[in-house]
Amino acid sequence: VRPQDIITKKRDGERLSQDEINYFIRGVTDESWADYQISALIMAMFINELDLSEQSYITQAMLNSGKVMDFSDIELPIVDKHSTGGVGDKTSLIIAPLAASCGLAVPMISGRGLGHTGGTLDKLESIEGFNVNLTTVEFKQIVRECGYAMAGQTTDFVPADKKIYSLRDATATVPTIPLIVASIMSKKLAEGLDSLVLDVKTGNGAFMREFKDAERLARALVETGNSCGVKTQALITDMNQPLGKYVGNSHEVYECIKVLRNESDEQMKPMLEVSIELTCRLLIMSDVAKSTGEARKILIEKLESGKALEKFRKNVELQNGNPKICDKPEILLDKDLELFEIKADRSGYIGEIQTEEIGKAISSIGGGRTKADDRVDHAVGYAALTRLCDEVKVGEPLGILYCRNQSQNEAIGETLRTAYKIVDTEKNQLELIKKVIT
Amino acid sequence: VRPQDIITKKRDGERLSQDEINYFIRGVTDESWADYQISALIMAMFINELDLSEQSYITQAMLNSGKVMDFSDIELPIVDKHSTGGVGDKTSLIIAPLAASCGLAVPMISGRGLGHTGGTLDKLESIEGFNVNLTTVEFKQIVRECGYAMAGQTTDFVPADKKIYSLRDATATVPTIPLIVASIMSKKLAEGLDSLVLDVKTGNGAFMREFKDAERLARALVETGNSCGVKTQALITDMNQPLGKYVGNSHEVYECIKVLRNESDEQMKPMLEVSIELTCRLLIMSDVAKSTGEARKILIEKLESGKALEKFRKNVELQNGNPKICDKPEILLDKDLELFEIKADRSGYIGEIQTEEIGKAISSIGGGRTKADDRVDHAVGYAALTRLCDEVKVGEPLGILYCRNQSQNEAIGETLRTAYKIVDTEKNQLELIKKVIT
Repeated sequence: VRPQDIITKKRDGERLSQDEINYFIRGVTDESWADYQISALIMAMFINELDLSEQSYITQAMLNSGKVMDFSDIELPIVDKHSTGGVGDKTSLIIAPLAASCGLAVPMISGRGLGHTGGTLDKLESIEGFNVNLTTVEFKQIVRECGYAMAGQTTDFVPADKKIYSLRDATATVPTIPLIVASIMSKKLAEGLDSLVLDVKTGNGAFMREFKDAERLARALVETGNSCGVKTQALITDMNQPLGKYVGNSHEVYECIKVLRNESDEQMKPMLEVSIELTCRLLIMSDVAKSTGEARKILIEKLESGKALEKFRKNVELQNGNPKICDKPEILLDKDLELFEIKADRSGYIGEIQTEEIGKAISSIGGGRTKADDRVDHAVGYAALTRLCDEVKVGEPLGILYCRNQSQNEAIGETLRTAYKIVDTEKNQLELIKKVIT
Repeated sequence: VRPQDIITKKRDGERLSQDEINYFIRGVTDESWADYQISALIMAMFINELDLSEQSYITQAMLNSGKVMDFSDIELPIVDKHSTGGVGDKTSLIIAPLAASCGLAVPMISGRGLGHTGGTLDKLESIEGFNVNLTTVEFKQIVRECGYAMAGQTTDFVPADKKIYSLRDATATVPTIPLIVASIMSKKLAEGLDSLVLDVKTGNGAFMREFKDAERLARALVETGNSCGVKTQALITDMNQPLGKYVGNSHEVYECIKVLRNESDEQMKPMLEVSIELTCRLLIMSDVAKSTGEARKILIEKLESGKALEKFRKNVELQNGNPKICDKPEILLDKDLELFEIKADRSGYIGEIQTEEIGKAISSIGGGRTKADDRVDHAVGYAALTRLCDEVKVGEPLGILYCRNQSQNEAIGETLRTAYKIVDTEKNQLELIKKVIT
């Protein structure tokens, strides 16, 4: 068998066998396939697609391309959550301590922000001293001690995905469900999970803007997870406005601690709601609860009693972060920032919020990355004071921009303002949880 | 514009503009596109195809990727022939001197053999001293002096084709008409031609086995040539048996000189017939003749008078070959070869000849190349003594294998014999010239 033989089959729309897909992924990992051969096959996979069995084979081959985590010495159910990414999406920082406080173990390998979306590692690094670069041994030890750990990938973690993703990025072959599924699921399954819940975002701040695309992706993720022996469920959730109150790394951690301290305000509630719904699924799949109602009751108790906050504090300590933020979350916020109110230019109801534009704007002043090697300014951010369907009066603040100086306000203030479309008649509220895929 | 933008368009089945195709080919030539980006686009072009205008744009962009020949100082019509390749196909060595003897100039950039097909440069190198490595200046000077020259590509000749072809070979994207057309036509058009005739082979010894594929390719070549301002016609000719008598480099040159000396036997006649038909098209396109009848008359005269042989001799001298072969062609043939008769195993009529198998067999004992860097043994070869539809008796020779030793005969003798399918009833003769595309 030569690479050309495999490429020919997929070029002509044929189905690849498990052996052929294993040969391909082995060739990616041991570099016996040239980059131009990998990218030719990837393009053929993009155009001619992969069926469910091929999707499952490539996921398994990728997850086995490096070291797979082994938590067999931990007696707890091993679970994780993955989100397809959005603006203000910080639920990981709620879900991990919440699940841990219910007796689940969460080995959360996380990523960084790019484009309009944020990344968990960047958020965590706004905590003074917090170390996201853990060895596998350290990572497992922290999971063992406090029920969860959050870290970046080590180089031997699913190496085939790193290689393939960088080629896809350079060859316009990123947006295809089978390869998105393989990339997401190979990394999650290499965590050695029992159960996984997926938060598939849809709307104008999500990668899958259309509900039907999000649903297709969610079904493919769930089917692939289950076919690989991991209990998998997905929620399709709304991303037509920032999730919760804040956008921007320090501010998002601040928001999470406020929530864990039971001090959440109205703007934070939707973020808590999505976090609870996702964690409920993990409790049910792990047989900790039998129904969503029972699971919800348990989670509310863990929050109100401060048990979830305790797990968070313990994790921050173990990952070398400053635990004082748990008592005084306001120390996360930079006092030297300048505040600019984003004001409604007319009275009416908020009919649309261009969510991706808000994400990009904050990213452009340092809140995120345009290119993978950009430096991040953890301090800058945005507070959404209004939500879709809210009634506003001309001149009232829609949100607040926290930035370094007037020129940053000049650069993006108008973009933030025009991201809000104010209309005459009130629209129907959008459902936060649009669908559950089991 | 980034490579990804162009790749995305073709990935999604959109048409590329001339600017976009120019940007791509420039990126191939100046290496600003990575190999994996080139191969991703090539795969998208393979699967989603190129329309006629894109085919013409890519041909022009490729031909302009290096130096284009300029014969504006030669007053003669500049013409050439290209064949898609077959077994025993040696018409270039007849057509070039024949056309030159009619006052046409033929700057014939040629290639080497690979797989079951031969290459003109390999054939020429069986002439003692013959130099196929000419500088552009030498090449033009020889065209000027004797009406034709035959040489390999210089490194600055259509560099984009070299790069793209080697990537196509490694990524299973060779067999697609638009890229075949661009590869053939960019090199031919870079010769600065007025007219071009194409010999598109079809049958079991051709790349395009099916007539309809050959016709599609022929039409695409003709349309692209004409759209690029070069008068172009194509013949679709039969390749269901070796063309003419001999297969193998020295033997093929020997056959050509015998034909040019008016000493051709029955087995050589079909090769001469195809050569004359192709050259007729060049005479008509160059306004040397008005009809095929008139052109044929001129050509027969040039052959019978020895004018074509004179051009051949002059060319051999100018390219440092030994001109004595023109007087004593048998000196081309190695006296030390062993001869093995390939005998009919039953009586009947020859119903099928597996032409590609014969080509591969002779190639495998050194007559050609399996890999691009194989060494060629110019001496070995095969003489076809019988043709399709011939009646044969059991034990009669079908052909003669000329090889180095008995073990070569053991290696391929049986393959040669079983390449002939002898049947009970005589089949209809196949037409040699199947179609003319103008």
